[in-house]
Amino acid sequence: MQDIRIERTTQPRQKPDMATVRFGRSFSDHMFLMNYDSKNGWHDARIVPYGPIPMEMASMVFHYAQEIFEGLKAYRTAAGKIQLFRPEENIRRMAQSADRMGMPAVDEDMFLEALKTLIRVDESWVPEMKETSLYIRPFMIATDVALGVHASDSYLFCIITCPVGSYYPEGINPVKILIESEDVRAVRGGTGYAKCGGNYGASIRAGVKATRQGFSQVLWLDGVERKYIEEVGAMNIMFKIEGKIHTPALNGSVLPGVTRKSSIELLRAWGYEVVERQISVEEILEAARDGKLEEVWGTGTAAVITPVGSMTYKDETLVIGGGKIGEVTRRLYDGLTGIQWGTVEDLFHWTVPVSK
Amino acid sequence: MQDIRIERTTQPRQKPDMATVRFGRSFSDHMFLMNYDSKNGWHDARIVPYGPIPMEMASMVFHYAQEIFEGLKAYRTAAGKIQLFRPEENIRRMAQSADRMGMPAVDEDMFLEALKTLIRVDESWVPEMKETSLYIRPFMIATDVALGVHASDSYLFCIITCPVGSYYPEGINPVKILIESEDVRAVRGGTGYAKCGGNYGASIRAGVKATRQGFSQVLWLDGVERKYIEEVGAMNIMFKIEGKIHTPALNGSVLPGVTRKSSIELLRAWGYEVVERQISVEEILEAARDGKLEEVWGTGTAAVITPVGSMTYKDETLVIGGGKIGEVTRRLYDGLTGIQWGTVEDLFHWTVPVSK
Repeated sequence: MQDIRIERTTQPRQKPDMATVRFGRSFSDHMFLMNYDSKNGWHDARIVPYGPIPMEMASMVFHYAQEIFEGLKAYRTAAGKIQLFRPEENIRRMAQSADRMGMPAVDEDMFLEALKTLIRVDESWVPEMKETSLYIRPFMIATDVALGVHASDSYLFCIITCPVGSYYPEGINPVKILIESEDVRAVRGGTGYAKCGGNYGASIRAGVKATRQGFSQVLWLDGVERKYIEEVGAMNIMFKIEGKIHTPALNGSVLPGVTRKSSIELLRAWGYEVVERQISVEEILEAARDGKLEEVWGTGTAAVITPVGSMTYKDETLVIGGGKIGEVTRRLYDGLTGIQWGTVEDLFHWTVPVSK
Repeated sequence: MQDIRIERTTQPRQKPDMATVRFGRSFSDHMFLMNYDSKNGWHDARIVPYGPIPMEMASMVFHYAQEIFEGLKAYRTAAGKIQLFRPEENIRRMAQSADRMGMPAVDEDMFLEALKTLIRVDESWVPEMKETSLYIRPFMIATDVALGVHASDSYLFCIITCPVGSYYPEGINPVKILIESEDVRAVRGGTGYAKCGGNYGASIRAGVKATRQGFSQVLWLDGVERKYIEEVGAMNIMFKIEGKIHTPALNGSVLPGVTRKSSIELLRAWGYEVVERQISVEEILEAARDGKLEEVWGTGTAAVITPVGSMTYKDETLVIGGGKIGEVTRRLYDGLTGIQWGTVEDLFHWTVPVSK
């Protein structure tokens, strides 16, 4: 494995006030960089001060979106230790995204070492306040300076981090979701299961429209029949119907979320039945109308668990659980965040210590 | 309309040998830049030396692919004049792409003025040799330094140019096309009609696979039923069957090509019947088997008209027109490039002079 060269900053950045910090706006002192080209493979692993990099405007990433990313967090426990939550899941998923986008994978051990080393260098950036964490954004971009659509010969792998508070500054209150009936995010055979920029770029217009109408996020339907539920803007989604948990199966156009997977494992360990399957929007609307839809929540790294208070499809709005947070939603949030911050025993061995 | 500030280079770049230049690898001396933010709108229109721009690694374009582009060319006529081909079509399409991606449009007059001014400044970069031109790449990227999926508040609009020879260095020989049956490029409701990076990023893996197997490009089928023909990697596609021309209709997942539109108008002016409709791959295979498929060609800015010599679908390869360039294909190529280089009278008023 390559050595990681470390160049420490001489001009430390101002740390944000963790009570008011906005998600993804304040970056830590350092970033990890590593270059790839087809001749030399991955090389020049280094940690350098966070700052701008000169980019030629003909760089492929600006034109053909050969770009993938991941998102995970480092947590500080009450004892002051720093830990990651299932980083190997993100590492593996990034390799899958790379495959879909014709990009090279990063060696798994190297990737984990890069994460740990960067967080050790920026240890003081892992916040202590309750509900805060260090958000970690590994990503890879195509850097060939060339027009003409082709797989780039060269890539930059980068990890940046930022201390974040709770994703929803107002606390975990139930959100209003708009079921999108026009725009489509992904389709089987497309890039839906990959964490590539294009999926998110395609989602922005619908997100803007929903926000203007007072919704928090959009729920996507499948691209083929536009009747099966796929995922929410930045989350997977789960439904509790008559005591049982239902969630869309990983069909190729749904992102295989790490929080989704962890929630399923936790719920099953608690004795809940969890069914991964094709779920039509009509079925969910009917369950809601009949009073059988007890809870709805989203799962994602940024917000962990997000209760859904209402869902709007075309002209119909269905309030879920009286607009309050459900019992399983709350238990999942407490269970997962408890493991992440080290207040609940990690029976699954999901956390990985960063401190040496 | 804003004034365009011009800062000329003091270190002119080396011009490439036009006999051997590779497509999209050698950039002209200058580039056009203009910034947008929601408070000031578009501002600071300027032409500066081509060169790298410092970019923060948290810039939105690297993560969520909020990026769109266009491609057009400037041609030098035998009389030494420089002209553009239907630039207003590209300007209008870029506004449509911007709308789909939640990005601001550039004022049409400003856009055209930027194109003309930049090409005048880099006039000496418009090559003279036969079959050469100046390829022009306008594009827009999201520049907010912020993670969290949202519409960026700030954007950079940029135009870079590069002198290019013929897209196929070996001349316009018929290419071999692979009909892709696994990966999907776009779906209705998605971004297929927009010229956004994500569409191209999604296409790269299939392109690599096809190239390895000796094919030139991939032909995409629709994302819903995977049986209707949409477009080829960098081109729209047309079929001549028993004297009539057929091409996939603009259904929302097909790029509305400027060369496609111009070809249809030219063909109709010549008395050909052109039908825009849904075309199944089975129908084309059958026409080929029955000897009714007379010609197949692609239309696109980079290569203008590309004859298709064979199409391979799963295990079947169908040779078209004995693998030779068809009569209409040749006539279209000569007709369009004749107008572009000013050797054929521009009856449609498609060309726009750049010289004052």
